[in-house]
Amino acid sequence: MKPTTVGVIGIGRIGRMHTKNLVHAVPDAYVKAVVSRTQVDPAWADALGIPVRSTNVDKILKDPEIEAVVITAPSGLHVELIRRAAAAGKHIFCEKPVAFEPAPIEQAQAAATAAGVKLQVGFNRRFDPSLLKMWQGVQAGEVGEIHQLRVTNRDPKAPPIEFVKRSGGLFFDFAIHDFDTIRFLSESEIVELFAVEAVLVDPEIGRAGDVDTAVITVRLANGALGVIDCSRQTNYGYDQRFEVFGSKGSLVVENTTPTTVVSSSKAGVVADTPHENFVGRYREAFIAELSAFVAAVREGLPVRAGADDALAAVKVAAAAKASHETHLPVRLSANVQATSGGQRR
Amino acid sequence: MKPTTVGVIGIGRIGRMHTKNLVHAVPDAYVKAVVSRTQVDPAWADALGIPVRSTNVDKILKDPEIEAVVITAPSGLHVELIRRAAAAGKHIFCEKPVAFEPAPIEQAQAAATAAGVKLQVGFNRRFDPSLLKMWQGVQAGEVGEIHQLRVTNRDPKAPPIEFVKRSGGLFFDFAIHDFDTIRFLSESEIVELFAVEAVLVDPEIGRAGDVDTAVITVRLANGALGVIDCSRQTNYGYDQRFEVFGSKGSLVVENTTPTTVVSSSKAGVVADTPHENFVGRYREAFIAELSAFVAAVREGLPVRAGADDALAAVKVAAAAKASHETHLPVRLSANVQATSGGQRR
Amino acid sequence: MKPTTVGVIGIGRIGRMHTKNLVHAVPDAYVKAVVSRTQVDPAWADALGIPVRSTNVDKILKDPEIEAVVITAPSGLHVELIRRAAAAGKHIFCEKPVAFEPAPIEQAQAAATAAGVKLQVGFNRRFDPSLLKMWQGVQAGEVGEIHQLRVTNRDPKAPPIEFVKRSGGLFFDFAIHDFDTIRFLSESEIVELFAVEAVLVDPEIGRAGDVDTAVITVRLANGALGVIDCSRQTNYGYDQRFEVFGSKGSLVVENTTPTTVVSSSKAGVVADTPHENFVGRYREAFIAELSAFVAAVREGLPVRAGADDALAAVKVAAAAKASHETHLPVRLSANVQATSGGQRR
Amino acid sequence: MKPTTVGVIGIGRIGRMHTKNLVHAVPDAYVKAVVSRTQVDPAWADALGIPVRSTNVDKILKDPEIEAVVITAPSGLHVELIRRAAAAGKHIFCEKPVAFEPAPIEQAQAAATAAGVKLQVGFNRRFDPSLLKMWQGVQAGEVGEIHQLRVTNRDPKAPPIEFVKRSGGLFFDFAIHDFDTIRFLSESEIVELFAVEAVLVDPEIGRAGDVDTAVITVRLANGALGVIDCSRQTNYGYDQRFEVFGSKGSLVVENTTPTTVVSSSKAGVVADTPHENFVGRYREAFIAELSAFVAAVREGLPVRAGADDALAAVKVAAAAKASHETHLPVRLSANVQATSGGQRR
Repeated sequence: MKPTTVGVIGIGRIGRMHTKNLVHAVPDAYVKAVVSRTQVDPAWADALGIPVRSTNVDKILKDPEIEAVVITAPSGLHVELIRRAAAAGKHIFCEKPVAFEPAPIEQAQAAATAAGVKLQVGFNRRFDPSLLKMWQGVQAGEVGEIHQLRVTNRDPKAPPIEFVKRSGGLFFDFAIHDFDTIRFLSESEIVELFAVEAVLVDPEIGRAGDVDTAVITVRLANGALGVIDCSRQTNYGYDQRFEVFGSKGSLVVENTTPTTVVSSSKAGVVADTPHENFVGRYREAFIAELSAFVAAVREGLPVRAGADDALAAVKVAAAAKASHETHLPVRLSANVQATSGGQRR
Repeated sequence: MKPTTVGVIGIGRIGRMHTKNLVHAVPDAYVKAVVSRTQVDPAWADALGIPVRSTNVDKILKDPEIEAVVITAPSGLHVELIRRAAAAGKHIFCEKPVAFEPAPIEQAQAAATAAGVKLQVGFNRRFDPSLLKMWQGVQAGEVGEIHQLRVTNRDPKAPPIEFVKRSGGLFFDFAIHDFDTIRFLSESEIVELFAVEAVLVDPEIGRAGDVDTAVITVRLANGALGVIDCSRQTNYGYDQRFEVFGSKGSLVVENTTPTTVVSSSKAGVVADTPHENFVGRYREAFIAELSAFVAAVREGLPVRAGADDALAAVKVAAAAKASHETHLPVRLSANVQATSGGQRR
Repeated sequence: MKPTTVGVIGIGRIGRMHTKNLVHAVPDAYVKAVVSRTQVDPAWADALGIPVRSTNVDKILKDPEIEAVVITAPSGLHVELIRRAAAAGKHIFCEKPVAFEPAPIEQAQAAATAAGVKLQVGFNRRFDPSLLKMWQGVQAGEVGEIHQLRVTNRDPKAPPIEFVKRSGGLFFDFAIHDFDTIRFLSESEIVELFAVEAVLVDPEIGRAGDVDTAVITVRLANGALGVIDCSRQTNYGYDQRFEVFGSKGSLVVENTTPTTVVSSSKAGVVADTPHENFVGRYREAFIAELSAFVAAVREGLPVRAGADDALAAVKVAAAAKASHETHLPVRLSANVQATSGGQRR
Repeated sequence: MKPTTVGVIGIGRIGRMHTKNLVHAVPDAYVKAVVSRTQVDPAWADALGIPVRSTNVDKILKDPEIEAVVITAPSGLHVELIRRAAAAGKHIFCEKPVAFEPAPIEQAQAAATAAGVKLQVGFNRRFDPSLLKMWQGVQAGEVGEIHQLRVTNRDPKAPPIEFVKRSGGLFFDFAIHDFDTIRFLSESEIVELFAVEAVLVDPEIGRAGDVDTAVITVRLANGALGVIDCSRQTNYGYDQRFEVFGSKGSLVVENTTPTTVVSSSKAGVVADTPHENFVGRYREAFIAELSAFVAAVREGLPVRAGADDALAAVKVAAAAKASHETHLPVRLSANVQATSGGQRR
């Protein structure tokens, strides 16, 4: 069976990473075209064996050979690109965030549904070997009934302030992964949320109207409690830890490190710091999410991270922002649960 | 210099542990008398070399040789015993909780101050080698400015329901240690708090009017955020983990285990579960708090866990209960900070 | 600069792995041809974009575009293929073992030297991120003067008995990596060796004239001592641990695991077993050794694992076999040190 | 039942530790007398409640109330004191080494047997919670048939050269524990041994006729192989690691640390170094061996570390020394196995 032909829209840092992964690590995919607002480096495209490079998205959308697109253009263009790709009959993998509001996500989803195409969202953690094993353990009853979940999400260092300004803020850009992780691991919906937050890393972030530190407690539809702690800066690498604790015990995902070297001396017993960013930490996950997308396209399977998940996560982010603004706990409307829980399985 | 002569009031499980520690591990203490509502086992007292055993507390309070008392009687008697011991001029070590209300704690403190005697409270974690090292690291600037604190406090299995009923509840009996730990590690006061909680371990605990699972987020006077998660049952031992995270990095206290044996086989790489309860986990801390108390008495030093700490912790517990009841965040009155922060050092 | 054109000779398990790595993970390499004694699967070659597939090695050796070969044919053909490739002016990467005797390795090396081509040997561990970091630590003086080295090398399960019979035996096939690792980490030569060994895993291995368990102690030219322990079967995965211990402290490489999930329950605190075989454990190393080979070819750099290293390791393996047969310690001739130490840098 | 009355002979560093442990942590023991060549500090004895202090060993041996003695006098006096204590009908705990030659140990054992008294030797590791759990795991078949054992025994820093000179040397003073540990864990006898050794820590040790670094490989009667590595100096604390590896998997005892604090920063992820010496590392073991001795006396049980174990270990040490001197492997005479194996159970 011949590979699925793919076009990649948007060749920034993430776009180049996904393209390379598709070419090198997803045998069932063939990247025929890449489109970017600026010229694509021909040497880069040559090395990857990609014949079509363009600044015109129609080179992908109007190419009948191209079955699927990977959208890694700037976030503001995501929904419009999804609608156009769906209209062109292309299956769609779209980086998160799809949008910062529920309505456009629902429109994107509706467009994909109407066109009968797959729409997968870039919640990469769902494909991480450790988180996947944790999810399997939860499914297998290893922790019994879930009582508590915990996510620690800390970036090694604060992003450039320009990024912060257009990122959507800590809740929509950063904690969005954590909201999805809680939903993924628990298979339950967040029904109540309270956020405390602060500007402790960099006052510049505060002046940009954002926060850099937050602790968010949640209550789930299944009765469990959860807590997310976020920071924009650790100084010791990308800190990604997860815990599901329940009636029988707990499952924890610890940090990963580039090496397993341990040095013992008068100074102590010193191990590696965690991976320095998401590229190293989630290397397998980034490959696996594209493999799964291509497999979903080829085998007609449901995607494992859909627009309904993006929608649910954005609603939680909005609630977190509301809690931050009102200093009060916020209840989420019941239809979040119904919609999302219903479609995910 | 001869040892400090001590009397122990209350010979339950904790009282016997403290007595044994005083006799065996605190060289500067001599336990002359033990008093209990029921008969003291003479063989036990003989083996420890304690000549005076009685059901009458005056055998201790009126003995001019006895310089200090350790109060491990039922909680309801603590304040009255402190007042009588202070009136008798005895230095006082009192197990937590001193009381469940601020007023009696203030009265107890006033009585001790008026009598010029030491009053130390049983916040054992302040004397744990790991937590003490963590505190020293914070003091030495290892984490820089504190951004976040985290306490995980989980009992191996739920206590008998009779204990739950008279315990004061999860916030006053159990999380009280966590409130103190946050204050101890941060040297800052909790100014705002939000508690989510649930009955997930045992419905019997709910019927007794208590909860068994809670996540409490706090905001400190120094701007840092904190989170405490509690459970009455792990099934995998006594889970006691702590983290202070700041502008330079983090300090974490991991669980301790009875052995360091690791078994590798088809079934996985299996290490010991944590110590099964507080006796094993805080063995050194229980000895160290009494050593420090005796040293404070002998050398006229301030105690390292005083009535002001008990008072501050109880105010936080009351706020947690209020948050639980109102489902709202609760601000603590500013005088908590002033009083306690001022007196602790 | 255009990629280096490569031909791969031998498309067994290792050959396919190297080919895939060259295509996907070594951007500076282009695999033009693969040669195998049996037909190459065209779908596999198509997917990798390899135009030339043949059963005739001349399709590689006589192709003037092909600059370098990767030899992964059966071990018995290695030396002859090296000689022919050198005669054809191709740079050579050859899987270990080059040969089981010093003389043919010397001939292979002489052929490469005479032809002015690179000859790199597949000592993959030298390119493992953890071992490389350990080597750098040793170079940086982190352990001070080396006092002891330790290598634990244990396969997850015994290979098929047919493989054992033609493998060259535990010392030449398996411990050869350990001998090289000791030399690599210490930058010193083994001057004395004593081997104890046994058949404990599978009596069939004994009947095939081999052993499955061994402990080998060595003395190095620099005065340090070393110990290697080998087993053909762990049941708990591929056990690869390393230690360099010296006057200032130690560096240890611990096992790697597929995930960082830790499960806590009544049954204990359970982590993953190590990677199940060399493919997972040394994934980065296999890529890095080919990248380094291609870089050496392109930039005229010395290879980091040469025929002199293969020669030295084989001499140690022969000494180990002699020790096993005589039950006596064996001294290695001084010229090992001179030759090898001189050429490695 | 009244406590067993004990006298302690020799109040050096170890003697004081054992005395304190007997008084504080062995409830069934009463230390009535301590004897030392020099005056015993009366304040120390007072604090421990020991009425009799003397420089005359007869104050212990002729006291009919004293049932058992703990011998911690200088090694050279051990055998003579055992003989006199046995003649006086006292049960005996004697610190290792009993002697450096088989003959006097056999005489000591014969004296104890003739007198019908217990004779326990200070192989403290047999009572360490981790090693005991490991032994239990081996007994329970967790590793299946034993294939390999490993002991890492490294002191934090070299002892004073005066101690080295009278210590009996690395094999008799230091590795003696490792020989016993191999025997204890495997329940098998060492039948062949090869030692490589060096002076790498301190040339002064070499001038004193001793070595400071050694690797000793052994073959056991049950077919398993073992390796011991020793060093007089780590700089990172007392390194005590153990492994039993077999047909089903492995059991490892890792180092213990004073705290579980982990610091993460730019500098790495830093944990505590191991305990700084045997006092901290084997605290529980030192208490447990005396508890077990007293229990053996009171309940007529066999001791868990007897003169036969001391004898077997010394024979192994002598073989190690012979191997060191001859640079050859040394076989141990078969009667070691018979004697010792027969009497241990």
